[in-house]
Parts: sequence; structure tokens; C-alpha cells
Amino acid sequence: MCRFTLYLGPSIRLGKLLIEPEHSLINQSVRSRERKEPTNGDGFGVGWYAPRLSREPAVFHSVRPAWSDRNLRELSRVIATPCVMAHVRAATAGFGVDLVNCHPFSWRRYLLMHNGYIAGFERIRRRLLAPLSDTAFGLVRGSTDTEHLFAVFVDQLLRDGEAANGADPALRLAERLAATLRQVLQAAAAAGVREPHYLNVAVSNGQQAVVSRFTTDPVGDGDSLYLLRGNLYQTTAEEFGERDREERDTAVLVSSERLTPAPGWQAVPRNHLVVIGRGERPRLLALNELAEIV
Amino acid sequence: MCRFTLYLGPSIRLGKLLIEPEHSLINQSVRSRERKEPTNGDGFGVGWYAPRLSREPAVFHSVRPAWSDRNLRELSRVIATPCVMAHVRAATAGFGVDLVNCHPFSWRRYLLMHNGYIAGFERIRRRLLAPLSDTAFGLVRGSTDTEHLFAVFVDQLLRDGEAANGADPALRLAERLAATLRQVLQAAAAAGVREPHYLNVAVSNGQQAVVSRFTTDPVGDGDSLYLLRGNLYQTTAEEFGERDREERDTAVLVSSERLTPAPGWQAVPRNHLVVIGRGERPRLLALNELAEIV
Amino acid sequence: MCRFTLYLGPSIRLGKLLIEPEHSLINQSVRSRERKEPTNGDGFGVGWYAPRLSREPAVFHSVRPAWSDRNLRELSRVIATPCVMAHVRAATAGFGVDLVNCHPFSWRRYLLMHNGYIAGFERIRRRLLAPLSDTAFGLVRGSTDTEHLFAVFVDQLLRDGEAANGADPALRLAERLAATLRQVLQAAAAAGVREPHYLNVAVSNGQQAVVSRFTTDPVGDGDSLYLLRGNLYQTTAEEFGERDREERDTAVLVSSERLTPAPGWQAVPRNHLVVIGRGERPRLLALNELAEIV
Amino acid sequence: MCRFTLYLGPSIRLGKLLIEPEHSLINQSVRSRERKEPTNGDGFGVGWYAPRLSREPAVFHSVRPAWSDRNLRELSRVIATPCVMAHVRAATAGFGVDLVNCHPFSWRRYLLMHNGYIAGFERIRRRLLAPLSDTAFGLVRGSTDTEHLFAVFVDQLLRDGEAANGADPALRLAERLAATLRQVLQAAAAAGVREPHYLNVAVSNGQQAVVSRFTTDPVGDGDSLYLLRGNLYQTTAEEFGERDREERDTAVLVSSERLTPAPGWQAVPRNHLVVIGRGERPRLLALNELAEIV
Repeated sequence: MCRFTLYLGPSIRLGKLLIEPEHSLINQSVRSRERKEPTNGDGFGVGWYAPRLSREPAVFHSVRPAWSDRNLRELSRVIATPCVMAHVRAATAGFGVDLVNCHPFSWRRYLLMHNGYIAGFERIRRRLLAPLSDTAFGLVRGSTDTEHLFAVFVDQLLRDGEAANGADPALRLAERLAATLRQVLQAAAAAGVREPHYLNVAVSNGQQAVVSRFTTDPVGDGDSLYLLRGNLYQTTAEEFGERDREERDTAVLVSSERLTPAPGWQAVPRNHLVVIGRGERPRLLALNELAEIV
Repeated sequence: MCRFTLYLGPSIRLGKLLIEPEHSLINQSVRSRERKEPTNGDGFGVGWYAPRLSREPAVFHSVRPAWSDRNLRELSRVIATPCVMAHVRAATAGFGVDLVNCHPFSWRRYLLMHNGYIAGFERIRRRLLAPLSDTAFGLVRGSTDTEHLFAVFVDQLLRDGEAANGADPALRLAERLAATLRQVLQAAAAAGVREPHYLNVAVSNGQQAVVSRFTTDPVGDGDSLYLLRGNLYQTTAEEFGERDREERDTAVLVSSERLTPAPGWQAVPRNHLVVIGRGERPRLLALNELAEIV
Repeated sequence: MCRFTLYLGPSIRLGKLLIEPEHSLINQSVRSRERKEPTNGDGFGVGWYAPRLSREPAVFHSVRPAWSDRNLRELSRVIATPCVMAHVRAATAGFGVDLVNCHPFSWRRYLLMHNGYIAGFERIRRRLLAPLSDTAFGLVRGSTDTEHLFAVFVDQLLRDGEAANGADPALRLAERLAATLRQVLQAAAAAGVREPHYLNVAVSNGQQAVVSRFTTDPVGDGDSLYLLRGNLYQTTAEEFGERDREERDTAVLVSSERLTPAPGWQAVPRNHLVVIGRGERPRLLALNELAEIV
Repeated sequence: MCRFTLYLGPSIRLGKLLIEPEHSLINQSVRSRERKEPTNGDGFGVGWYAPRLSREPAVFHSVRPAWSDRNLRELSRVIATPCVMAHVRAATAGFGVDLVNCHPFSWRRYLLMHNGYIAGFERIRRRLLAPLSDTAFGLVRGSTDTEHLFAVFVDQLLRDGEAANGADPALRLAERLAATLRQVLQAAAAAGVREPHYLNVAVSNGQQAVVSRFTTDPVGDGDSLYLLRGNLYQTTAEEFGERDREERDTAVLVSSERLTPAPGWQAVPRNHLVVIGRGERPRLLALNELAEIV
């Protein structure tokens, strides 16, 4: 069922997010605190943006548990980035642990990752694929529900035209994610799937990011998810260089579990989206209508 | 483009096929002789039957080159089996090297592997999947043309009823493979694919096996393929135990390249099937009609 | 700190030990019950004997967690053997997860695995290696305490002459393991190491096996270890074939944790060896003198 | 026996060295041109410096062939660095392909890699380790000759004091490498090893680098090695930013094979060191005395 962390803000060294915090993602791969099954040892992935060198983000995947991967620790030491999406995987029954099934998934400037599952996925896999353009269909190389959900997302981008972002690109991205979730829920409903879905999905293009905390389970709030704004850690001038305080305070973190015991982490409300634009205050949007698709 | 070896006959130690011959499959993973690109280092797989312990064959897959895999050498020492299908992979452009993409593929009693490629596969992937039953569709977990071809094969088995094998089950299996190739060629033709296909496909259920040497390339005979009957190696009583000579002579090997310099290897003619039943003389059947599908 | 299982008895299908029991070793890789840190996801290994095909056992190693390894499940279905040693690893701080560091270690007919650790190992590594013959020294390819302990064991075999087994080979093997532990403890004591050692070590040659439950920790009994004799499971004629009841009752299992809730599992007493010979009643020997090496 | 590439100069994107050149290191992993056995598919490694983020270099290792590793291509897109050491491995008989055995090896600011082998290594392994300090001894985690050679190198650094670099740190580094090679050759000679050694070794600390082309084979020049100075590729302002031409011309590449067909690559003479300091002209030093150690 996985755990993930998304960061968007001033350039930060990967280790500050993935390794050093008291309850870092690497520690969550060993023992997460807010999942029924605490271990997330079915591979991991990190996607990050390096805008000066490439338009598109890079992705690093491994089928090994995050806790024992030396490459991850090495990369964490020497990479700094203004936007990261990192994910540790717990695969259903431990199967399908393959590189093709690691999150985040990527296409052009976009990265997407997911904690949860699409109920009845094997029964609706065909329905999800059927309406897709050939391009979106061709993106699917593995067997995860997440990769199929991403194909739906990309299909919409292709239909709309990526550039149709308007004046509020973060909101546009939010609408796209909501539309993706809607399409998935409708396909499942049409197939008569009644079991609850768990759809904490994060997507970004390096400048905007949106994260859902969504479930159709009538009980509870779905998988855990937290938001933290502002200057997270005890930073020194060294960390952020000569950037001014105002910029430092624009760091935004959305994470399955709280990386640190610091105050400031707020639980994302059930069935809401966190909508993030670089340099802006994050917004919370309700996903009311989605909850009504049975 | 891969190399493979199939064996059906008295129980034989895996090492006798995979490790010990002068031009074993492991040696072919380093340097095959009859491929344009000699290296086959994009993973490997071995499927074998252990009829006293299980109805279904076991499959061992690895993304590592066969030549450096210690597990393969260890297993080869201690496993004896009456039917083996082993494959070393050369992936197009070295990508998609994942466990889900290793041959042989398996379903119930069946194993299938392939040397070659379906031309224009990415363009016809949807067409191949569209007519399949949900069960066959659900088998596909990766992105290889071979896995999709196998899904077509399984779909036919499910439609026919597996048990509809009649008096000549080896021939029935041959008809099924031919029908599978036909369906693939027709889908490609309907999509306007003109480039040549290379379809050396091996399928078995442990008792019968069929191997195709097929190409629509007007030039040449397609990927290499050889047949050897009878008592292959200098065997001693130790090797085959107390079985009699007549049984020993029923060993049949079909292999992309000749494992040994011994006489007796015959090249399989272009566009033919080798049809093998346990204890029977292998037969060659022409695939005339398939060659006419453009 | 690992969990392991050793079996010596009539030929048994691997799955009956590794997969099917309610608390199988695969389940212990996810969540063991008697370790402080329950996860054992730092690779695994299985060694087994196939006497009709090879004098030496085969070993299968993987750096992946046992719970997600498809090859392990496949092998478990089709391999039957009269002696197995299987191990799931929890590496200190999750590092050094490499094939060279997987248990069991092997040399000629011998397999050895270990749950626990040699205290102060990095400080005594050189002392352990210094007195070894060149042959034993040359066996060490990785960095585990266990591999070094095995080199000490092999060195003794080479000095004694392997064949010097006398009338009670199981007891001879026990003496060798005790001597190995003694040498390790003495090296640590000479180096001034005071922290406690945990040395649950299993060694076998396919016909005899010895397992230690040993610690120098003054508190507690060391890592858990259980012994079970006799016909373990609800077996049918199918399972053991035509062998008679008397032979079936000679199955012996020694395991870090109880694989089943069945009665009959007895905890191995602190600082004892379990001494097993094929077809004999297992014996318990006290390791009194070793406990006195400080 | 491997191929490698070292770069020291203005910050350059990894892809410009590892992926894009006509005869890049990735292409050499498939088919190198100046080795008897062209394939180098036994794992690879890249070490690089990120001085603004870390004093020590990062290392990325994989046991997969470089040609099929997606992570390598992704990293190559988004990492720029002023000093890189990259290596594709061909292991003797394809064994010992493990992460611990990947080059480059690292310790503090130093990276070291090797193409070739120490003759009779297994016979002199103990002699090489015996005189080392405990710290240097403890660095060895695997079984390669290269890792042992690196331990010898580190041992000297520790004895001298790293800071004892004087006015010409590049020359000091050269002396250290020569002393390391000398110690290795002497150990082999003392053990009566007569077969020829092949010691193309590269070492760097991010500011200086030294590469040897050395063999005791009386015939030939040893493994191939080339040097290229100056502005290698068609660079644009984009590539090197606002740095001036003079700085761009200080790029130095030392590589087993010529990455491009451009003129300017000069073969390093037999039994010489290439001595490189950041911003300086590379120097060639003869290793006369080493050649006399028999």
C-alpha cells in the first residue's frame, strides 16, 4: 500500500528529505507507523527535476527495499532539486515487484505516484484502457493500477493539449487529476465494483503539484496524508544559499507520514486535493462529486 | 533476438543441456554464432517439468546475463527433467529487461518461448488484445510481443477446451500454434504492417512440443533452428539409469544453434513446424498458408 | 539477525517447508515473531542435496526479500530433497546485501548458515583469518562474520582430513562445530571484545547435521531455536510415496521459529547443540566449556 | 577486462560522456573495439563529484549490463559534474558479479578504478593484505584484485597523512599510485608469480587525477588507453554557461577507447602515467623502475 513524499520549493538536497529526517521515507520502508502492514520493501523510486539540465525529470527505480539500497544513499548526498517525488512500495501480496511497476511513473514533464489501490482493478483493466488514444495506451508497460491510472491522466493531457493551462495552472492540474479519478471511479462503478477505492495520488510537472487524499470507504479518512508549509528544518545559510527568507518559506511538503516531529504538519482532510503552485500558498479543494460515484 | 533450446525425452540433468555442451546456451549468451548481434545478455529463463511433484512446470527467470548467474549453474547440477525450455534474451535496444519480460512464459501446463519479433508490434498490440477473453487478457503483465502472442495461444486453448486433443495431441498442439501465428499475422496485415516477421516459437505441455521456424522475410530462412534426435551425448548407464536403449533414443532436441559439433543436427526447413510427441518420431509440417498472409 | 530452517529426513518437497506451513520461512521474512526486529528482507538462500544427481548440494541465493521472489515459489513446487538448509537474512543496518553475503555458505558437501552475530567482528576479522590455511582463506569472498566462521570450520576439516569421521560421524561433526565456535570466541576474547555473541549456527553434509543454540549473553537463552522430530505434517501416502512409517518418523526439523502450531516443537536449551544423523534420534549436547570463554 | 573513462574539467553533463558519444562507454559495454573479448556486461559503476553539495564523491553501482540500465540513462540526463570516473566491467569468467565488486571503489574523497588484472592475484591476496593497517584492511568487502589494490593505496595515504601533498598535488598523487603499483608488483614477484600484469589504474580526488598505462607483458603496450585535452565536443554557450573559453579548454579525458572519431586523441605510451591537475596541462611520466620488478 506504499508511502510517499512530495516536495516543491527552493532547491533542497535529496538527503534532507529521504535520509536525514527522524521518520524519513527510508525509515518508513522498514517500519511505517500509519499502515496496517508497516513494511514497504517492494522496491522504491525517486523522481526529481533538474531544470538547468533537462526539461524532463529523471527517475531512479529499484526493486530492492529502500533501506538496503546504497545507490539511494549516495544519490541523496549529491543531488539537490526544487521538486521531488519519492515512493516506497508495498505490493499486494508482494508480487509484481519489477522495475516496470515502480513509482513514480513519468511522461514528458510529468511524474505520478500513488498510495492505495483501485478496487477490482483486474476486472476493470480493459475498461480503463479501451477509450485511451494509442499513445496513452502504448505507455503501459507493466501491470499496476497506478500505471493505468497514469495512462488515463496522460490521455486527458493529450486530448486537451498540454498547453491549455490558463491563468491558474495549478488549478488546471487539479482539474485534470480530479477528472482522472472520476474516469477511474466511473469505470469501476460501471463494472459493478463495490469494494472501496484508496486513491492518494500525487502528480507534478516540476512547477505545480497536486495530491489527492481520497477514498470511497465510508469509514475513516483513507490512507494517511500530511501537509507542511514553510521552512521545515533548522536550515542555515549554507542550505539555501543566498536566497532570501521569503523564498525559503515557500517550501511545501506533502507526505504519507510526518517526516519529523515538528509542529506544523496538518492532516489533509478526507476527500480533498492539495493544490500547489511554485511560490504560492497551497490550497485545499474538496472532491465532493467524486465521492458520489458509486 | 534471443536463442533457445527445447528438450523432450528421458529425464536428463539440466547441466547436460545448458552448461556442458561445447556451444551450450550459456555460451550462446556470451557469443552466439548465427545472429547478427552475438550477445544475448538481456536476461534468461528456464522452464522445466517435474511430473512426479507437480502437474505444472516450474520457471526460473533472471534479468542478469546467463553467463554470470551462479544460481543457473547450481540448478543445472541438481535438476533432472524430461522436458526443458531454456531461453537467453537479446532485447531490442536492450530495454524492457525485467522479470515480467523473460521467457518462457507459462500458464497451467504450458510453456512458450520465442526467438524473433512481431513486426510493428507496438502498432498492433491493441488489435491482438482486443478479441481475447478476459482470462487471456489478464495474463499479460509486461510489454513483450511474445507475451501477447502467448495470450493469443492461451485464448484459443480456452475457447477450444484444453482437453480437445483427440488422437494425435502433438498434431493438435501444432494446429494451435499455427492458428496463433495466423492470428498474429492477420492482425499485422490488417494494420498495414509490411516489415517482415520472425517467428521461431516453441510451445510445450511436457508431453508434446511444437517449434516453428517461420518468417515472412522473402530472403533467407529466418532465424536459425536445428533438430536432433536420439541419443545425443556419450551417455553411460549412470546418466539414464536403468532405462533401456530404446527409450534413450527418443530424446529430441530443438535448438537455435547446434549445441555440439556432433553430426545429426539437421536444419529445420524454412516455414515449417517441428512436431514432437513423447516417444514418437518428430514430424515436420509445412506452414504454407501462413506464408501467404501479407 | 535472520531466521533459518534445517530439515533432514525422507525426501520432502521444498514447498512443504518453505511455503505451505502457517508460519513458513517466507512468512517469517515478512514478520517473524521472536525477533526484536521482525523483518528479514535482506536476501535469502536455500541449499539442498540431490544425492542421485550430485555429491555436492546446490545453493540458490537472492538479494531480494524472500516474500516477493517468484523463483523461490517456483522451485519450492518442483524440488524434493532429503536435506535442506534455508535462511532469510536481516543484515545489520541493512547493508552488505549482496549475493556473496547470502547464507547458506557452501564448500564441497558442506552447507553452513547462521542466525546471530560475532560481537566485535570487524575488530577480530584479521585474527580469524590469520591462522587459516591458504585454501580456507581463499574461500572468503564477502564481508559477513558467518562466511569467516565457515572458513574457520573448513580449515579444521582440511587439517583433520574430512574422512576422519570415525564411528559416529554426527558426533564428529558436532565436535568440529564446537571447535569452530571455540576458535571464534577465543579470538574475540583475545581482542578484548566484551559484548555478547549470538551463535545459532547450522552445518550439514547431507547425512549429518548439527545446530547450535549459543550465546555469551548472561541474560536469556539467545536467539530462538526449536526442534521437531517425526512425522510433521498431515502426510498422505502421496507425500512420502511407498516409504514405510518408520522411515517417515525419522524426519528432523530444526528451526528458528515453529513453522506450525502443532505440538511437538521443543525449544532447544540454551548453549546446546542438536546433533542429527540420518535415521537416528537427534541428541542434545551441552556446550559448557564454550560458555566459559570470556 | 573492462573499459573506463575519466573526465576532469569544467562541469559537464554525464550524458555527454557516457551516452551521446559515438563510441560511448555504454556502447563499449556492448561491443568494445580494442579488447579480445568485446563485451563488458558484468556490471558497471559511475563515480562523480558534486563539490557544492558534498566533500565526497557519489558512486552509483549496478550488476546489470550498462546497456540495459535505465537508471544510468536517467542519471546521465540530469547530472553535471566537474569530475567523473565511469567503468564497465568484464569479470574473469563472468563470476563475482556483485555490487561489492563494482568499480570505482571509493574512500573519502578518492575514487579508483582499474582495467586489467593482477596476475596470480589469488596467490598473493594474503601478502597484499598482511602489511595493511587495520583501517585499510577493513575497507575490503569483496574479492576483486582492484579492491585490494585500492586498500594498498589507502593504506599509504593513511601512513603519509593525506594532507602531505606539497606544492604539486597532482605529482604527489602520481607518486602514490606508482608506490601502490610497486607494492603490488613486489608482492607478486616475492610469491614467484611470472605471468604478466595489466595495470591500467585511474585514481582521483576530484581536483587531481592520475591514470596508469602499465603492463609487465614484454609484448605490446598493454590495455589500450587514450588522452584528449581541450574542448571535446561541439559545445555551445549553453553547455558550459558563462565560463570563458580558456576554462573550457582545460577539459581532460582519459579513456580506454576513443569516445569520438575526432582528432586529438593520443595513445598513452606504454608504462606511463597521465598526471592531471585541474586547470593544468596533463603530464606524462615514465614508470621505468616499475617495469624492472620481476
